[in-house]
Amino acid sequence: MIMVSPDFSKSKDGLVAAIAQDWRDGQVLMIAWMNEEAWRRTVETGRATYWSRSRNRLWAKGESSGNVQQIKAIYLDCDRDAVLMKVEQIGDAACHEGYRSCFFRRLAEDGGLETVGERVFDPEEVYGGQK
Amino acid sequence: MIMVSPDFSKSKDGLVAAIAQDWRDGQVLMIAWMNEEAWRRTVETGRATYWSRSRNRLWAKGESSGNVQQIKAIYLDCDRDAVLMKVEQIGDAACHEGYRSCFFRRLAEDGGLETVGERVFDPEEVYGGQK
Repeated sequence: MIMVSPDFSKSKDGLVAAIAQDWRDGQVLMIAWMNEEAWRRTVETGRATYWSRSRNRLWAKGESSGNVQQIKAIYLDCDRDAVLMKVEQIGDAACHEGYRSCFFRRLAEDGGLETVGERVFDPEEVYGGQK
Repeated sequence: MIMVSPDFSKSKDGLVAAIAQDWRDGQVLMIAWMNEEAWRRTVETGRATYWSRSRNRLWAKGESSGNVQQIKAIYLDCDRDAVLMKVEQIGDAACHEGYRSCFFRRLAEDGGLETVGERVFDPEEVYGGQK
């Protein structure tokens, strides 16, 4: 099977941006990064796998929290250097801070940030002392 | 006015990812990059401005095509190194290839790509010989 792939050569670090979007209501849940191995595992397993820049290793989303992302569809952009995934977010929260979406803060009129997302879980309970 | 800003120091090149999403139906239109100046202009003008990595300059979206993106809301993610904008896409097409969304190709079951987006305009007519 010939598998299409993003063009990882376009960025200096060999990573492309990957956006996870809720497949039902279209909410953008998070953005993270993929290298070639993360892409391959995502396609083969049907679950989102990223490359963690901070931990410098593959990161199967949900490996700690259980909140995996089941892939419903995958799209590439016109330049083939970005990935969009429609996912079913198990546990209904993508963000490690317990919110449904990582984009839970909105720029307010006064130039500050306001929290607009609702917390689905308490990070302390899910991750404990883990970081 | 104290203006909140993404944390541009987190990436090596001083850029953060910026996602544009249709404010009405939630379709993800495109992803591009912002430096501090692009962010400032976006917030101040209410129109999406990016940093073009290929042209190495500020890029006011729509400056060639007229297809500007009017900002309806701006969100920052938990790490403050990614931006999500709800926009009204003037001309109803964000992609320079004439599609509504840059993510117009879907990974098919056979491992290839299938075009699922519909073309809104003919790039030749809008950009002419320009690239």
